[in-house]
Amino acid sequence: MKLKVAVNGYGVIGRRVADAVVLQDDMELAGVADLVTDWRMRVAVQRGFPIFAATAEAREAMNDRGFEPLGDLGSLLESADIVVDCTPKGVDARNRPLYEAAGIRAIFQGGAKHELTGHSFVASANYESALDRRMTRVVSCNTTATVRTLLALRQAGLLQRARGVLVRRATDPWESHTDGILNTMVPEPGIPSHQGPDAQTVIPELDVVTMASKAPQNVAHLHHWIIELTRTASRDEVIEAFRAVPRIAFIRVDDGIVALNVTAEVMKEIGRPRGDMWEVAIWEDILTVEGRELFYAYQVDNQAIVVPETIDAIRALCGTERDPEQSIRRTNAALGIGVAFL
Amino acid sequence: MKLKVAVNGYGVIGRRVADAVVLQDDMELAGVADLVTDWRMRVAVQRGFPIFAATAEAREAMNDRGFEPLGDLGSLLESADIVVDCTPKGVDARNRPLYEAAGIRAIFQGGAKHELTGHSFVASANYESALDRRMTRVVSCNTTATVRTLLALRQAGLLQRARGVLVRRATDPWESHTDGILNTMVPEPGIPSHQGPDAQTVIPELDVVTMASKAPQNVAHLHHWIIELTRTASRDEVIEAFRAVPRIAFIRVDDGIVALNVTAEVMKEIGRPRGDMWEVAIWEDILTVEGRELFYAYQVDNQAIVVPETIDAIRALCGTERDPEQSIRRTNAALGIGVAFL
Amino acid sequence: MKLKVAVNGYGVIGRRVADAVVLQDDMELAGVADLVTDWRMRVAVQRGFPIFAATAEAREAMNDRGFEPLGDLGSLLESADIVVDCTPKGVDARNRPLYEAAGIRAIFQGGAKHELTGHSFVASANYESALDRRMTRVVSCNTTATVRTLLALRQAGLLQRARGVLVRRATDPWESHTDGILNTMVPEPGIPSHQGPDAQTVIPELDVVTMASKAPQNVAHLHHWIIELTRTASRDEVIEAFRAVPRIAFIRVDDGIVALNVTAEVMKEIGRPRGDMWEVAIWEDILTVEGRELFYAYQVDNQAIVVPETIDAIRALCGTERDPEQSIRRTNAALGIGVAFL
Amino acid sequence: MKLKVAVNGYGVIGRRVADAVVLQDDMELAGVADLVTDWRMRVAVQRGFPIFAATAEAREAMNDRGFEPLGDLGSLLESADIVVDCTPKGVDARNRPLYEAAGIRAIFQGGAKHELTGHSFVASANYESALDRRMTRVVSCNTTATVRTLLALRQAGLLQRARGVLVRRATDPWESHTDGILNTMVPEPGIPSHQGPDAQTVIPELDVVTMASKAPQNVAHLHHWIIELTRTASRDEVIEAFRAVPRIAFIRVDDGIVALNVTAEVMKEIGRPRGDMWEVAIWEDILTVEGRELFYAYQVDNQAIVVPETIDAIRALCGTERDPEQSIRRTNAALGIGVAFL
Repeated sequence: MKLKVAVNGYGVIGRRVADAVVLQDDMELAGVADLVTDWRMRVAVQRGFPIFAATAEAREAMNDRGFEPLGDLGSLLESADIVVDCTPKGVDARNRPLYEAAGIRAIFQGGAKHELTGHSFVASANYESALDRRMTRVVSCNTTATVRTLLALRQAGLLQRARGVLVRRATDPWESHTDGILNTMVPEPGIPSHQGPDAQTVIPELDVVTMASKAPQNVAHLHHWIIELTRTASRDEVIEAFRAVPRIAFIRVDDGIVALNVTAEVMKEIGRPRGDMWEVAIWEDILTVEGRELFYAYQVDNQAIVVPETIDAIRALCGTERDPEQSIRRTNAALGIGVAFL
Repeated sequence: MKLKVAVNGYGVIGRRVADAVVLQDDMELAGVADLVTDWRMRVAVQRGFPIFAATAEAREAMNDRGFEPLGDLGSLLESADIVVDCTPKGVDARNRPLYEAAGIRAIFQGGAKHELTGHSFVASANYESALDRRMTRVVSCNTTATVRTLLALRQAGLLQRARGVLVRRATDPWESHTDGILNTMVPEPGIPSHQGPDAQTVIPELDVVTMASKAPQNVAHLHHWIIELTRTASRDEVIEAFRAVPRIAFIRVDDGIVALNVTAEVMKEIGRPRGDMWEVAIWEDILTVEGRELFYAYQVDNQAIVVPETIDAIRALCGTERDPEQSIRRTNAALGIGVAFL
Repeated sequence: MKLKVAVNGYGVIGRRVADAVVLQDDMELAGVADLVTDWRMRVAVQRGFPIFAATAEAREAMNDRGFEPLGDLGSLLESADIVVDCTPKGVDARNRPLYEAAGIRAIFQGGAKHELTGHSFVASANYESALDRRMTRVVSCNTTATVRTLLALRQAGLLQRARGVLVRRATDPWESHTDGILNTMVPEPGIPSHQGPDAQTVIPELDVVTMASKAPQNVAHLHHWIIELTRTASRDEVIEAFRAVPRIAFIRVDDGIVALNVTAEVMKEIGRPRGDMWEVAIWEDILTVEGRELFYAYQVDNQAIVVPETIDAIRALCGTERDPEQSIRRTNAALGIGVAFL
Repeated sequence: MKLKVAVNGYGVIGRRVADAVVLQDDMELAGVADLVTDWRMRVAVQRGFPIFAATAEAREAMNDRGFEPLGDLGSLLESADIVVDCTPKGVDARNRPLYEAAGIRAIFQGGAKHELTGHSFVASANYESALDRRMTRVVSCNTTATVRTLLALRQAGLLQRARGVLVRRATDPWESHTDGILNTMVPEPGIPSHQGPDAQTVIPELDVVTMASKAPQNVAHLHHWIIELTRTASRDEVIEAFRAVPRIAFIRVDDGIVALNVTAEVMKEIGRPRGDMWEVAIWEDILTVEGRELFYAYQVDNQAIVVPETIDAIRALCGTERDPEQSIRRTNAALGIGVAFL
């Protein structure tokens, strides 16, 4: 019996989650709900996905445009075991009561607050604590990358204190015509920026502080980390520590991968759908250890990195796979993480 | 017997041509030659392509990096029926004598001058004149788009005079870290810019003048046209004329496709490899006819548009398919042009 | 007796108009009104300008932040002969009744519609028709540039038909952190774009059609024009025609001025306040005449070009200078237009 | 008797240094030397500066274009007490023997290596060690900002260890049409990036490590610092420490100054020539102290910040002002640093 997964919100994340669900042999897509009636809905139709209207008004508008939704959000929830909420920030909180009323498990995305579900999820860090829960939140792209990499150092007993400077992409490509910034940078007004504390919702013991800024590009986040280690360690030890955690990959300047755009080009060339990179890509030959200090930088594909985490969260909440490593392995195999190039 | 196609130059165009060759049931990839030894060559290896070194020095460097090329350019040319030259501007002209010496047919790209081959190619316009030639040049992305669309108007007997303003993308994504422009626009110093006269190498009768500028983005070219028609015509007649020519597609503002980045997002979403768009995408609801004047704008994916043309040029030079429509149909079917969405 | 000028709205345009008023020997600045309480108001204070609160709430907020406005908009209007409305689009229309109630002359900016005042102003084109009017609208940056240059051709008896492609800057520098676009271009959905018809509010006889797009830069607009002349003419004739109209300057590619950013750098280097360029800067060595066709491109500083027009409009409405050439000469001399470099 | 200052290289820095020299009452501009013959030389002529040709060929080219240089570099050096070398990286080193042969004091810019002169200069840090030297190097924009701010913490006895992430602007505005990057970020391949060690050429005792990246904008550098203090300290103490060092200014998010572009706009509005900001601008309300850790971010105008330092270096080398504070005060007063707004 496959898990029936509903996707509510068919945007940047929802589209990727829906595609990833379809690729898992233990899941099927119950349907996607949204309220748009433009090219985005036509893509869902072309993919052959069951379409539902997120609201009554949307249902009418969809019918007017010839989309023939199978029903509204309520009927979608009835037919599913679990819903992945990929709606915009603010909408997600309003959806929670609907999911509770429908008696359905629910996964929220990182735009939501930790308090909405009381649990924040990164597969390699705390899969087991999510087993059989009604709800969890897959943390944001920045937090996911932070947790994966700091977890690696922590598991190796190397992490004392982490200080990060996160230079964020300004907006996503699809809305860069309305929501961009231009020839400037915007520092986050508060220190710590929210990503540091957010990582502590997954691993409370982390000593982590982050500063953040926004740069005028839409390719990827670029994180810079300054780590105090628990002891002097070699570069090799550190790299080994990173290799021990799934969904961390290494790229190299001396392989010609010298900037965010090049990594993105590589992803397109190795055939990744949409050019997505699900891994955190650490620059191996930039990484430096000096005594008890470690410095490194990596690239985060903010549109893609949470997708495999979401797939794992589905299995964790539904309790159908109780071993984190097994779930991660299945997800990775289905998506093609680790089989090629990186 | 399949046509054996060599690809010399495994860059933005070469990679796409190699992939497209592999998809044709009447062609096989004899191999790719280049001199890089970084991630680009690793991609070729991962694809399982026969690899050759473009020069003797490159062969050594490749061996040093563990790539084990099967031979040099000479051996590649010996094993092929035709070579597609995708080397940078300037290198192509130096390669011509090599191809002649090898007695092999050759296709050059739009960076080369018309004089290099004496023939310039756009499949829908002059396929037949390329039949059995030793060499041709597939014209540049801007010229290909110009020819496809003006041809449409000309075939419908509507084209009197064409005046275009071509706003070009500044550079390609993969080299945007070294070769970009930033917060400015650069007008082409000469009028007509080279694209107008270049279109006349394919259709000499065109009355066409172009102005051009460069904009700080790497997504696509945006062409604006002001056409004097031979007579008053309706919008529908004009659209019908465009529909009659292959590899022209329509996009609509009222479908949410309002800017270059949105079209690019759509291509990724409908599963196009690398997000490529092989069609000229005309904004249908922007197109306006006023009396005997026609105004329209379209988007050109400069990395992709010449790829199907190159495939057709292979068949034309080799003479294995003498009917332009048949070749275009086969190429389109193999790539997936016209089957979906657009 | 100097003209007392009120400036309502102390933003990009208002700040420049206030400074320009101060430089005129026949005008004095009655004060500036706004509702912001951040650095922008501190600049007004530093300049020593009389400050007024645009609304009652603003007055309180200003007092809270220690700005001590001299009064509200009402008192400013009482003390002035004329008001220049530099408030955002939409606000201007709501202000009109206030100005009428105060019995004061008023100038609106190009964000307003022609219908708001029934008169649209460009000094070199229709100064005299504005004499003694209660209200006028100084047309937008794009329209001002269009009118200045097409007027030149018309006055020389050369203008038959004008077709333009206007590539607009996406936003102004000061708000580029919230209001930008990023790595894309946005075509205007309608043809003609509004600038063509808008030019006809100043010179109704113009046969002009414009297409427009938005580019990801905040430096300047770049207009491309394709002109059908009334007869064959020489390049020199055309250049002479442009020279005969004030506030048109020439720049040259062979002088190293090859892109928007270079022109902007020149303006800073010749000491223009804020780097402003009040002139339309035509590329002299790009301009081309072919038979009865003329092609040219120019750069428009969208923040500055309407400032001298506004100063002239003040004199025209107040009727204190009845000769257009005299007013233009005075304005130009006070600002420094034409004395240097260009 | 005024100091006669020669400026060799009339580019981004040379133009600013020449203007700043003219504003000092104890200096006069002996002349500027360059080899360009485009708008840049015309600006020098317009400013009324004595012009010299950097090379014999340049002299001919200048004469051909009607610039009439007064002589070549040799004659300029003869007539001056000191030369400020503002030539591009690489050229400076080749000029050193010329200056030695001419028996003239010389100041190099931060593109040069420390070894070229054996002394690296920041006025507030080590003015006295430069007194009567033949040569010094004014360190780069990034290093100047780093030294000014770390010096402040060190003088207050607060600085233990400094770790910085420097996000650099990609290129200068005037060459953004040829030398930009586009929609990407480029991490510096080495850690520490050169700025950390470079600061130690001025203050050897600093414990400082920097990472750096390049962002696609041309406005300013944005530095993020994570400081380990010698002891717990209050925010006020830290701010006081920064205030005690000249050419550090404070900006505030709650004053509307929220991004690089806004600060740049403020500089234009307060009438700074070219919109230059000579100060390091620290965001006061972003600065955070947590126990013994300090976090802050600031903006560096890379075109302007070294200009007052260069003026001070002139006095130090010539020994005409032996008190650092006096020199800094004179330079600041002449330029207008500290009198307004900030």
